[in-house]
Amino acid sequence: MRIIHNLDEMTETARGWLAGGSVGFVPTMGFLHQGHKTLVQAAHQECEISVASIFVNPVQFEESEDLIRYPRDLSRDLQLLSTTSVDVVFVPRAEEIYPAGFSTFVMPTSSPWAVQSAKGAGSWIYARGVATIITKLFQLVRPDVAYFGQKNAQQIAIVRQVVRDLNIDVGLRILPTVRESDGLALGSRNHFLTQLERRAARVLYRALLAGKALVDGNVRNPAEIEKAMIDLVVTEPVVNLDYVKVCHSDTLSAVDTILPGTMFMIAAHIGKVHFIDNIIWRGGTNWLL
Amino acid sequence: MRIIHNLDEMTETARGWLAGGSVGFVPTMGFLHQGHKTLVQAAHQECEISVASIFVNPVQFEESEDLIRYPRDLSRDLQLLSTTSVDVVFVPRAEEIYPAGFSTFVMPTSSPWAVQSAKGAGSWIYARGVATIITKLFQLVRPDVAYFGQKNAQQIAIVRQVVRDLNIDVGLRILPTVRESDGLALGSRNHFLTQLERRAARVLYRALLAGKALVDGNVRNPAEIEKAMIDLVVTEPVVNLDYVKVCHSDTLSAVDTILPGTMFMIAAHIGKVHFIDNIIWRGGTNWLL
Repeated sequence: MRIIHNLDEMTETARGWLAGGSVGFVPTMGFLHQGHKTLVQAAHQECEISVASIFVNPVQFEESEDLIRYPRDLSRDLQLLSTTSVDVVFVPRAEEIYPAGFSTFVMPTSSPWAVQSAKGAGSWIYARGVATIITKLFQLVRPDVAYFGQKNAQQIAIVRQVVRDLNIDVGLRILPTVRESDGLALGSRNHFLTQLERRAARVLYRALLAGKALVDGNVRNPAEIEKAMIDLVVTEPVVNLDYVKVCHSDTLSAVDTILPGTMFMIAAHIGKVHFIDNIIWRGGTNWLL
Repeated sequence: MRIIHNLDEMTETARGWLAGGSVGFVPTMGFLHQGHKTLVQAAHQECEISVASIFVNPVQFEESEDLIRYPRDLSRDLQLLSTTSVDVVFVPRAEEIYPAGFSTFVMPTSSPWAVQSAKGAGSWIYARGVATIITKLFQLVRPDVAYFGQKNAQQIAIVRQVVRDLNIDVGLRILPTVRESDGLALGSRNHFLTQLERRAARVLYRALLAGKALVDGNVRNPAEIEKAMIDLVVTEPVVNLDYVKVCHSDTLSAVDTILPGTMFMIAAHIGKVHFIDNIIWRGGTNWLL
């Protein structure tokens, strides 16, 4: 496992790979868990060269407090990655990614990103930050395939739009969300919860399953499903719901009726920890859970 | 000489080149002249594969009238290119470059682009348009080296910033401006001038040389040089001066004193035809003319 910090070294290394085999890439913000490990293992199995990156991207945070509080533990991350067969871990420094004079952003301008934030106005910062860093990482690593977990649907939608609009020659592989035994999606900050909060957090996935049960029972009205999900979440007072959304899984735009490809999203915070999760109905009994 | 219109075909072709030799790329808006031909010939000589693109980029025009009026003659362009040894001519269609739902722009946010337009407010549209199309073309063609003529300093500065900020692994080769025997920079629209206007247009390069003469005579004050250039241009009433600028050749930001690396820019229109030109002082008797 080779660790690269320097941008020129990454560029040179990636250039050397062009004549060789396929490159699978897992971009992360670190503080890794089994969900990330699953992505890295898939990259290793499916591509000849596997790369993971660890970079807490400052420009995608709406509030500097959230950036400062974002958990970091590089030595633990490298320890976890050393148990995979990843070839390269790319850990760029923020001063080199955003040097003095940096002034070019990749700017998604479509509206579905507004789903991100209850605050509304700030969400374009997240979308611009994700779009900019993924474009930069794709230029530095030059992957053939990039791997993402389904949990962060917002991020996936932005990356998909950027790849399509900027004609970046990279395939996207979306793997199912990895969950705890009680259904809670794995997340970097899950262990910050108290036992009480951790128990309450189960309601998020249960709300998604409540939506699923209605669809399985032939309900096709988004408002009815959203209401049932909300009614369940509010039974847990420590859980502060940000939103539930019933939307198209690619574009994240709201739907009028439930069709195959519809996504059920939930976002909430418990204390200062944010949670997101989603499931997708693919038609009939076929669900991405 | 192979002509590619289709984006998927270009992507597949470029992917095939990755394992092979170096790719030299000349992006153009068509209506080609000897200046473009010089760039294509350099790409052919210096790289194993040479590609030229022809695409009038709609999103970099501030006024739709200018887009509609932009000269086009694809069969003449292909005829000219067939006299070079270019391997591929990429002629994408606007509907495929900017399909329905296109919504991701590359956005330069630094200020020197304001030099572009006398109108001021519109210049960010040009900067955004150039940054977006060059990023897309670089993803589609995946060149090792891209070739530009020095004449369009504004465009070069934008491309240089985008390549640096987005970490695109491409080298930029800037070749000297190709001129008529009387010094007028070659341009797609030069032949739209009447004989009277064509004669008057010589004042643009003469104004640059007047600036050079002052620098050679040890004048180091930008305002004095700008004044001398303006005073010369106004002797030709059919020439409407947009601006003269004395600035840093990389950043295009104004300078307080003339130093090696200072650029002298001029922009004007005659009738509805816009002209830009520049020269760069490299120190001592070394000029890029």
